[in-house]
Amino acid sequence: MIVKEKTSLRFVFKGVSHTAHIFFDGLHIADHYNAYTAFHAIAKDVEPGEYEVVVIVDNSFGEFSSLHVPNDYYTYGGIIRPVAMEEIKQLYIERIAFTPIWEKGGWKASIQAIIHHVENQEQTCSIRFRLNGKEYEAGSCEAAADGTSRVGGTFEFPGAEAWSPEKPVLYELRGILFVDGKESDDLIERVGFRVVTAEAGRIQLNGKDIVFKGVNRHEDHPMVGSAFPFQLMAADADLMTDMGCNAVRTSHYPNDERFLDLCDERGILVWEENHARGLSLDQMRNPNFRWQCEQVNREMVEQHHNHPSILIWAILNECASDTLEGREMYKEQLEQIRELDASRPLTFASHHRDKELCFDLADIVSFNLYPGWYGDEDPGELCDLARGWADASGGLGKPMIMSEFGGDGYYGYRDASRVRGTEERQADIIEANLSAYTARSFISGMFIWQFCDCRVTEGTDWLLTRAGTKNSKGIVDSYRRPKLAYAVVQRYYKK
Amino acid sequence: MIVKEKTSLRFVFKGVSHTAHIFFDGLHIADHYNAYTAFHAIAKDVEPGEYEVVVIVDNSFGEFSSLHVPNDYYTYGGIIRPVAMEEIKQLYIERIAFTPIWEKGGWKASIQAIIHHVENQEQTCSIRFRLNGKEYEAGSCEAAADGTSRVGGTFEFPGAEAWSPEKPVLYELRGILFVDGKESDDLIERVGFRVVTAEAGRIQLNGKDIVFKGVNRHEDHPMVGSAFPFQLMAADADLMTDMGCNAVRTSHYPNDERFLDLCDERGILVWEENHARGLSLDQMRNPNFRWQCEQVNREMVEQHHNHPSILIWAILNECASDTLEGREMYKEQLEQIRELDASRPLTFASHHRDKELCFDLADIVSFNLYPGWYGDEDPGELCDLARGWADASGGLGKPMIMSEFGGDGYYGYRDASRVRGTEERQADIIEANLSAYTARSFISGMFIWQFCDCRVTEGTDWLLTRAGTKNSKGIVDSYRRPKLAYAVVQRYYKK
Amino acid sequence: MIVKEKTSLRFVFKGVSHTAHIFFDGLHIADHYNAYTAFHAIAKDVEPGEYEVVVIVDNSFGEFSSLHVPNDYYTYGGIIRPVAMEEIKQLYIERIAFTPIWEKGGWKASIQAIIHHVENQEQTCSIRFRLNGKEYEAGSCEAAADGTSRVGGTFEFPGAEAWSPEKPVLYELRGILFVDGKESDDLIERVGFRVVTAEAGRIQLNGKDIVFKGVNRHEDHPMVGSAFPFQLMAADADLMTDMGCNAVRTSHYPNDERFLDLCDERGILVWEENHARGLSLDQMRNPNFRWQCEQVNREMVEQHHNHPSILIWAILNECASDTLEGREMYKEQLEQIRELDASRPLTFASHHRDKELCFDLADIVSFNLYPGWYGDEDPGELCDLARGWADASGGLGKPMIMSEFGGDGYYGYRDASRVRGTEERQADIIEANLSAYTARSFISGMFIWQFCDCRVTEGTDWLLTRAGTKNSKGIVDSYRRPKLAYAVVQRYYKK
Amino acid sequence: MIVKEKTSLRFVFKGVSHTAHIFFDGLHIADHYNAYTAFHAIAKDVEPGEYEVVVIVDNSFGEFSSLHVPNDYYTYGGIIRPVAMEEIKQLYIERIAFTPIWEKGGWKASIQAIIHHVENQEQTCSIRFRLNGKEYEAGSCEAAADGTSRVGGTFEFPGAEAWSPEKPVLYELRGILFVDGKESDDLIERVGFRVVTAEAGRIQLNGKDIVFKGVNRHEDHPMVGSAFPFQLMAADADLMTDMGCNAVRTSHYPNDERFLDLCDERGILVWEENHARGLSLDQMRNPNFRWQCEQVNREMVEQHHNHPSILIWAILNECASDTLEGREMYKEQLEQIRELDASRPLTFASHHRDKELCFDLADIVSFNLYPGWYGDEDPGELCDLARGWADASGGLGKPMIMSEFGGDGYYGYRDASRVRGTEERQADIIEANLSAYTARSFISGMFIWQFCDCRVTEGTDWLLTRAGTKNSKGIVDSYRRPKLAYAVVQRYYKK
Repeated sequence: MIVKEKTSLRFVFKGVSHTAHIFFDGLHIADHYNAYTAFHAIAKDVEPGEYEVVVIVDNSFGEFSSLHVPNDYYTYGGIIRPVAMEEIKQLYIERIAFTPIWEKGGWKASIQAIIHHVENQEQTCSIRFRLNGKEYEAGSCEAAADGTSRVGGTFEFPGAEAWSPEKPVLYELRGILFVDGKESDDLIERVGFRVVTAEAGRIQLNGKDIVFKGVNRHEDHPMVGSAFPFQLMAADADLMTDMGCNAVRTSHYPNDERFLDLCDERGILVWEENHARGLSLDQMRNPNFRWQCEQVNREMVEQHHNHPSILIWAILNECASDTLEGREMYKEQLEQIRELDASRPLTFASHHRDKELCFDLADIVSFNLYPGWYGDEDPGELCDLARGWADASGGLGKPMIMSEFGGDGYYGYRDASRVRGTEERQADIIEANLSAYTARSFISGMFIWQFCDCRVTEGTDWLLTRAGTKNSKGIVDSYRRPKLAYAVVQRYYKK
Repeated sequence: MIVKEKTSLRFVFKGVSHTAHIFFDGLHIADHYNAYTAFHAIAKDVEPGEYEVVVIVDNSFGEFSSLHVPNDYYTYGGIIRPVAMEEIKQLYIERIAFTPIWEKGGWKASIQAIIHHVENQEQTCSIRFRLNGKEYEAGSCEAAADGTSRVGGTFEFPGAEAWSPEKPVLYELRGILFVDGKESDDLIERVGFRVVTAEAGRIQLNGKDIVFKGVNRHEDHPMVGSAFPFQLMAADADLMTDMGCNAVRTSHYPNDERFLDLCDERGILVWEENHARGLSLDQMRNPNFRWQCEQVNREMVEQHHNHPSILIWAILNECASDTLEGREMYKEQLEQIRELDASRPLTFASHHRDKELCFDLADIVSFNLYPGWYGDEDPGELCDLARGWADASGGLGKPMIMSEFGGDGYYGYRDASRVRGTEERQADIIEANLSAYTARSFISGMFIWQFCDCRVTEGTDWLLTRAGTKNSKGIVDSYRRPKLAYAVVQRYYKK
Repeated sequence: MIVKEKTSLRFVFKGVSHTAHIFFDGLHIADHYNAYTAFHAIAKDVEPGEYEVVVIVDNSFGEFSSLHVPNDYYTYGGIIRPVAMEEIKQLYIERIAFTPIWEKGGWKASIQAIIHHVENQEQTCSIRFRLNGKEYEAGSCEAAADGTSRVGGTFEFPGAEAWSPEKPVLYELRGILFVDGKESDDLIERVGFRVVTAEAGRIQLNGKDIVFKGVNRHEDHPMVGSAFPFQLMAADADLMTDMGCNAVRTSHYPNDERFLDLCDERGILVWEENHARGLSLDQMRNPNFRWQCEQVNREMVEQHHNHPSILIWAILNECASDTLEGREMYKEQLEQIRELDASRPLTFASHHRDKELCFDLADIVSFNLYPGWYGDEDPGELCDLARGWADASGGLGKPMIMSEFGGDGYYGYRDASRVRGTEERQADIIEANLSAYTARSFISGMFIWQFCDCRVTEGTDWLLTRAGTKNSKGIVDSYRRPKLAYAVVQRYYKK
Repeated sequence: MIVKEKTSLRFVFKGVSHTAHIFFDGLHIADHYNAYTAFHAIAKDVEPGEYEVVVIVDNSFGEFSSLHVPNDYYTYGGIIRPVAMEEIKQLYIERIAFTPIWEKGGWKASIQAIIHHVENQEQTCSIRFRLNGKEYEAGSCEAAADGTSRVGGTFEFPGAEAWSPEKPVLYELRGILFVDGKESDDLIERVGFRVVTAEAGRIQLNGKDIVFKGVNRHEDHPMVGSAFPFQLMAADADLMTDMGCNAVRTSHYPNDERFLDLCDERGILVWEENHARGLSLDQMRNPNFRWQCEQVNREMVEQHHNHPSILIWAILNECASDTLEGREMYKEQLEQIRELDASRPLTFASHHRDKELCFDLADIVSFNLYPGWYGDEDPGELCDLARGWADASGGLGKPMIMSEFGGDGYYGYRDASRVRGTEERQADIIEANLSAYTARSFISGMFIWQFCDCRVTEGTDWLLTRAGTKNSKGIVDSYRRPKLAYAVVQRYYKK
């Protein structure tokens, strides 16, 4: 790369899988762990000339990595999401947090700008916001000890339209940074006005009860791994809409922001969750687990705060929430997220049935159960039981979501016998589940496992049950070809 | 059916799966358990008229059935093999047992005729054999208490040609029964002259060391279940020959005699085994186990005695031969078979590695190991280890066979990643195994698991690893379409 | 084969493809052309001993063969249907022709026995028939110059039940031959009482209008060619019934009698046709065409006369019936068949649209049109046009059948684009056609092209349109796996 | 979009399929026909503010469009390639043409800069080039009447390394525009030093005979149409290299420059051709044909001039070069291209065999023949014939390329019969062709038809031979899964 005039450069890596070491002309300027959150690296005061940026990437498993482990999905290596480069001055707006508020029949919002002071100088600055043609002065700010300053306030937006799945109205929010009275930086975010609540055993969007009709989705594709180009994201969103979904769960990690943008634009409701799947208590005891979770939680919530489509934050899918030791970690993480963002309800997906110990900590109780696949239970009876388990152990009065259910169907394997593994059997299982859940008013949402087939880590243990080194429970296959279950989903979700 | 003249009728059911109750015009004339051996039913002194034969078939699992259990293959229900009807008189030849003997550079044979006396009459009769244009008087006989008489002897056959894979010479052996000096019945068998021995750690056919290059084969087909028409049997034999096989193991039960006929004609060497697969000690304690095994052993050996292609009798695949209690049953069954037919070596396929307790009871040691599939072991190293295990526990000096190895490959799933489940990976696994075994002189045979994909019992336990309710380790798929491993097999077996 | 007592032997070859030369111990005893009709060969006065029967089979194309030509189906070589052997005496019953008659509210039947006099002896004989427990004397007969004698009559069968698709009642008809007063031979046929008429523009079975809801079926299977074992025939019939079919067209040749037996038993209505497909005028001018057609017509009608399921005889699918020269041949053949059997209406399938010249010769007009596949026409509009073409050129007042329609769908090729060749598009085409035809009261039947995919002759001409050397218009693929169109057929045919 | 300071904006559309109308805030600023070449649109003197850019796209077929017609590939609609936006001043460098020259053992290059004068002002300017660390003054320039000025010269590059497939050395060439002595714009191109010649019946790269071992490639993918993201292009290039290709033909249109960049980087030799496939004389008479061809030729050659990987320019695949009227158009176009760029040899792919009339006009003779697919000819004999046809009609002494050959193979259709359409047969055909061509020294190149399966226009005419609305001659299928022929290509191309 060529630099023509002296400047500081900020590189934003949207996703490097899973551990990155960044060098600018040989100078080590950043490290990061976790494939699924962004981070930045700054090269200060770069003189004109040609430079080389080196990204060393490691996707190996090992003691260091507590969240990327051999698992029921694949940890592809490499730079899986875009990289942005921008010239920065001594101060720049790092992010803006927009939190809509519905009060007395009108929209307000709390807006906070976070300004980064490169070199931690004590310069004063001020911020002005612009939204829907109007300007809002947020006042001036001074840097804190960590080189960051925050400035903002609560503003009224009379006449603003609400964001909803039916009409996903978005506004451009522009923050302008003034230093010494001169415009010095700006940042444009896209926001929407909506509030989400979890009251009276149901979930409300802008005060009205909603039911999530969704799928779980892995960012996985046989042709690009997890390095999705925009075309393929949009194609996925098209398929979800065509299937009748109004929701998606970003199982099991924060997603590419471009996909969240698509959800914002199309009114697809999002359950976003931190990065963890099926970790045992032993795995949670990994000495790196705590900080790696703290980091991914913080980065997820800060980076994706402004997406109106995200209605739920979740943590630790199917981990050891049935143990007291595990419960401590669930508690810690839920509190961390609640502190970062009090505007969204929290949950976690549990498969512990009547052994679950953490329902009291969450706002919504969520069950991963696979009636008809891992056992022969009846979906209706099982979710009635689940409601009872929840009520008996801290979930009484809380909304309930069936966060995972489904069965394997190998694309192209159709057989009149309808044996396990055929597309027919998968369709039968999906039908039995959807039929039960859509008929029960205490269920506030359902997420089919899963949108598309995904690659898994190869193994000879329980992964032996993953024929072809894939989790084949997708409603579409890895190439996004609809299986027979697709029409079943349409039938229930488009009602 | 119409009977024109008074007669007795004998119905031979070649295979009814798995429990049969036979009625002749309402009269209960026979019962039988086990799908894979033949049995007969006699209606005596039937007057002219029209009659109905009813066969009630049951293929349910339950306490009664100790051998047909939910398993890694499918127990189809129904009349799966042909039914023959013949008119009989008071005496008829039930079977002839032909046992070739090589002595002083020439062929002899022991030939025994077993005559059934309907109504147990004490009639005297005599037998004459005819083979290759010559006649042999076997003398006269009298019925034993059980209504059966045996007559026979040892005869010389100068000029007879040996049966071998290269030149599978067959002879028609006709036994003629005389009662009161008049020809009363005859029976034609097809026989071959060959002897099999297991000496000096190798297996010999007619004195020469041989190596079995074979496949394990289930009688299973998506279009006919286990009720094979002749065309499909012949097509299977064609494929085996095209692949370069010189051998087949009738895993895990006695096969249709028409398939054995094909093996006789084509010189395909056969390891035939009784009916059992992977029974635990608990399952072997089923009160019906002993008699059901005793019966299938006896029927198998008596019914298939004359097939020159059968070189090995085997029992109890992967059962509890690693326990003292199990050992007793292995011992009992091996002794039973040895008594019925001392002309063939005996074995059983074991997966107990260094825990095996029964190698001393058999003539050949056989291992079911799946290096590269169920574990990451190296096939060569593993079979060297196996030789050691055998030597250390009663198998020293005995020939050794790799009776099962392979891996799943889903037909049509080809992927450059070569992950587990791809046809490519299966080909790799087969290559690694064959390469190791064909290079080791202490190995007297190898049987790939398996010839064709087969259906399995549906289940949510370990059968979860059987994607699509199939065991997909076939070198050809269930429709007999070659997978990529096919060419690998050809490369090694046609050398 | 072993002959124990002197006898004459009759071998009946049910089907040899396509030209057979039969030798008995070196003696040339029969020749036959055409794969799809039976013929016999007699070895007279065979002394006891061992004999060899040799069948030389030729399936090559060439000048000699006018009906088996490179075509849209495959001429497999070999003995494709069973062979029967029987011992005969000087006289034997060759066949019995049973023709039911409905008169004055009761069932009668004309029954004729055809007796073959081996050596053309002038022996007299008599015949007695037995049906439903009663006996009928048919009188005595003398041999004609050709060594054949016929004897029979018309008999009443009070209380006989009619054969119908809903209740396919069958009776055993036994003919007993007496020579010199002694029972000398017998023959058992299975018959049904039903009459078929074509009046007032509709087709009647036992006086009630019927509509054929059928498929065209080729005797073709990737695993057995055209040499079907009974299991696979029964499986085909099962599928047809499951699809809701009440009819099948034996396109384009007489079928295996066992399949017709299944149709008799299950009440499946049959359009049977002689052997010809798409022959051009040039091909019809082949000097062998006339006799080869005459023979296949005669053999078909005589051999299959007694199948109650056969309601229609047809000839010459898509041949040159749009030419005057072709018309002569159509006329000749229709007259021949009418003379052999006046009890069934006749038709032929035409694709000549408004150029057809032979509608006046047939009893039913039949169209092969492929709206939506070979052109973009609307099925409803096109069949309205077709009715007009028929009315204008000799078909006025005659029932009309859509004898072929459909489109290719490659099994497993499913795509949301619904482009030509996808299973989806095929389903669309089938739906559009069935929707149009089932809604029109002037249509007496429809036969989808086709039941199952079939292999075709390889070629670089129009056969280039047969991807994969197959005609892929099957509702099930060659392995009988249902395509998406299957459910569409069920929806229309099961109404 | 937001403009902060007054500026002029230049939008470069790399590809819009197939007709674009560009509006800037309602102002119509550009139109363009043809999906496969870039064009720009300029919005002058834009004041600060928010603006909207509208692109109206039309991909319909009709009289207007002479090159996009229903065809053996698919014309997807939309913005299929990237769009770039840049701020420009009154003058900017539009492009730089770099033409390497090998002279007296050293590298020179002619370098021309084309400067666009917005508003056609008569400003003077000068250009400096920088390459490999050195600077080259090109002098000053004045605008011509069309608002364009050209400036450049021939420069020596001692020590420059040649570009070759084995070592594809690339240099950055930076042109810097000075206006009134101040740096005003720059443009960076990537170039390579290599010369291509066609002498003595062979093709030379840097003086050494080369043989193209290539594939024809359509920019087509089931998941993105022709709107390729970079990942998928790179994956295609990976596959080609893995297959052993050293060359690719951009059939049948100019390709995305990012793909050409990949070819530059990896040393893949390119035959690029204008946009036309199989147009009949009638289609060539379309009144728009001449200008649409002139334009695509010009845009292709100007836009892609600097790619060292492009060795050949070609025109009008399989059009009416067998007619005198067609010949005139071939002549005109070849002359146009030769005038635009005399540094590369020209050709066109012909299927007219001995009827071809234009071989004398080209530098290389190229044949599209499909022995083994559209006919039963032997590839070796056929290309010997082809050499004769070329020699006899103007091609004597010219290099010869087999520009298309192959056969359909439907992915997943494998069958021991090896019938047409199976992957096996396709592999056989590819083998027969490659075996013949690689053995003949007069053949300078071969391009398999084709790299990947591609979608075609749906139709009921000859497109009926395109099963599944695809051209299935790909060595990989549309999802890029290797067919059996892949290994054959490797065997021949990696030798």
